[in-house]
Amino acid sequence: MSQESSTYKLPQPLPLDSGRALDNAQIAYQTYGQLAADKSNAILICHALTGDQYVASEHPITGKPGWWERMVGPGKPIDTDRFYVICANVIGSCMGSSGPASPDPKSAPDAAPYAMGFPVITVRDMVRGLVALLDGLGIAQLHSVVGGSMGGMQALSLAANWPERAARVLVIASTARHSAQNIAFHEVGRQAIMADPAWADGDYYATGSSPDNGLAVARMAAHITYLSEEGLTAKFGRRLQDRPDGSEGAKSFGFDADFQVESYLRYQGSGFTQRFDANSYLYITRAMDYFDLAEEHGGKLADAFAGATARFCLVSFDTDWLYPTAESRHIVHALNAAGAKVSFVELSAPNGHDSFLLEHDELDRVVRGFVE
Amino acid sequence: MSQESSTYKLPQPLPLDSGRALDNAQIAYQTYGQLAADKSNAILICHALTGDQYVASEHPITGKPGWWERMVGPGKPIDTDRFYVICANVIGSCMGSSGPASPDPKSAPDAAPYAMGFPVITVRDMVRGLVALLDGLGIAQLHSVVGGSMGGMQALSLAANWPERAARVLVIASTARHSAQNIAFHEVGRQAIMADPAWADGDYYATGSSPDNGLAVARMAAHITYLSEEGLTAKFGRRLQDRPDGSEGAKSFGFDADFQVESYLRYQGSGFTQRFDANSYLYITRAMDYFDLAEEHGGKLADAFAGATARFCLVSFDTDWLYPTAESRHIVHALNAAGAKVSFVELSAPNGHDSFLLEHDELDRVVRGFVE
Repeated sequence: MSQESSTYKLPQPLPLDSGRALDNAQIAYQTYGQLAADKSNAILICHALTGDQYVASEHPITGKPGWWERMVGPGKPIDTDRFYVICANVIGSCMGSSGPASPDPKSAPDAAPYAMGFPVITVRDMVRGLVALLDGLGIAQLHSVVGGSMGGMQALSLAANWPERAARVLVIASTARHSAQNIAFHEVGRQAIMADPAWADGDYYATGSSPDNGLAVARMAAHITYLSEEGLTAKFGRRLQDRPDGSEGAKSFGFDADFQVESYLRYQGSGFTQRFDANSYLYITRAMDYFDLAEEHGGKLADAFAGATARFCLVSFDTDWLYPTAESRHIVHALNAAGAKVSFVELSAPNGHDSFLLEHDELDRVVRGFVE
Repeated sequence: MSQESSTYKLPQPLPLDSGRALDNAQIAYQTYGQLAADKSNAILICHALTGDQYVASEHPITGKPGWWERMVGPGKPIDTDRFYVICANVIGSCMGSSGPASPDPKSAPDAAPYAMGFPVITVRDMVRGLVALLDGLGIAQLHSVVGGSMGGMQALSLAANWPERAARVLVIASTARHSAQNIAFHEVGRQAIMADPAWADGDYYATGSSPDNGLAVARMAAHITYLSEEGLTAKFGRRLQDRPDGSEGAKSFGFDADFQVESYLRYQGSGFTQRFDANSYLYITRAMDYFDLAEEHGGKLADAFAGATARFCLVSFDTDWLYPTAESRHIVHALNAAGAKVSFVELSAPNGHDSFLLEHDELDRVVRGFVE
């Protein structure tokens, strides 16, 4: 499969919902496959909170496979033999697109990072950046926009605010607004980062240190919300860790990771800090918490989709307690009220919110069928 | 209502499940009402993770009313005109009973605190301490033992290990074992505390500092699990904070607490650090994570209750996702299998796990009826 890594420098400042604008903005993106001469075969995949543009290729830091390789590639449900797949790092993130770690043009020639001087962005701002990229690529209308979790929020925001830019909108395990509980979990993560003295009010880039402890705690708390109680029980239950000497696990009557689930969470937390910027975590969680598509459109979600001509497909998972099926159903009702074409399926899966990233034949069939 | 604050110094070292023993152990407790001449009217109330002995009297640090004043007092469901109510601070805690902040006898004459030299304890160890207190008070059999959440674990542990010590066992919003998800949330809290440099490997007592930031994050994460998604939505939804100048809330496009739920959580976190010791939080969460009543009894929960003669009552709340109804039902089935007398009710309440502490007329009726 042909693929390319590129960075698009926006020709204009990017206007933001806050009233500010992002100067010298850039968007790092990957493409897979060939763009048709009539540019009709482009699929934009939007990534989740801690995702990035490496949807179907090795991550340059971790060396791990792309985060959705099982879904995107030659012959895969999103078939790169047919489609030109674009996946861009959202602004605010840290894998090449403009974010808190990027040089603040105002600081030139120092090229000091924005840090907390980066403007607070919204999901719509992220999408505004993606639309600028599509403009740069000369793609007037996407064959499809596809996203799970925060990627689904972006797909919805694109459909609501730039309805002519996508013919198909596929939203998986997502929501049209962040609930009080969603906000609460994010706030715990932000407080964990900000409580870390290494955070230093966000000005840690030149210190040789970074708030890894706080970021790891934030990731651990969030990670629990990505999994289901049933999935955690099936995977770990109350099983104890084997000892370093290979002997069978026993309670240590200490504070080491006795239980496998403790060890797993610690690993998730510390691994994450290798590849993610703590300030980006603050900015992106804030954008998600601000997300309320109805509020953006006068308080009525159906009005967000007035005049939509795209076909929509919503997918939820029965064990997802982060963005439960009711949230998808709420979107479906709004789309129905707006007279949009929409299909909806709740899939059964044991692993909660994370199910959209995991092996799931039925999800594969739904995705393949919808982007046909 | 007559009430007393007392401290019981155990005449013997307290043996622990770890194989260690606690020397010079003491247990701080409150009593309410009058002990009958035949000592037949004693009710032991066991407190939850962050609770204490001030069940029906003002908290000496916060000045707030007792944590269950609506349930315990003259004419209340647990009527102190009839019953002699005992509520003791569990060992490991920080309100007068032996815990990490207590002087380590080995350090005499320095009287330096145990800190992380305090032995890791279990729920059964807590109950062993309570039984020693009952011995000291000359109470051979309680009229009832009552507890919610971790208090319910203690009630179950007492019933399983000292079955002759209580005629009635009332277990509210509790579980016979900590699930992988329960352990995961506690591990996030412990990591938040241990990541705080002020924790200093637990040796912070003489530093004039304490890991308040880490403890506040731990409390925030735990607090979310005490509430239901529905309850949070009803109480806060996506409502914004009013501005300090009194103007209506608006997004700040910053990182202040814009949403009411953020402000509430921050308040919960910081308030908690005024009254609770971070090391105690580590020890007590560890004890809860270790709790698995079946495992203690050969792997079969029914065997924990073999030969039980007490009457049991289990209460769960339909929106409690920390210890869901299924956990109570699991205990009821085990009690049935053991041939014990048991009643069970699932109550409907909007506020999740915390419901056992809140206004709930039906809970009042159940408690009053059971301890009659």
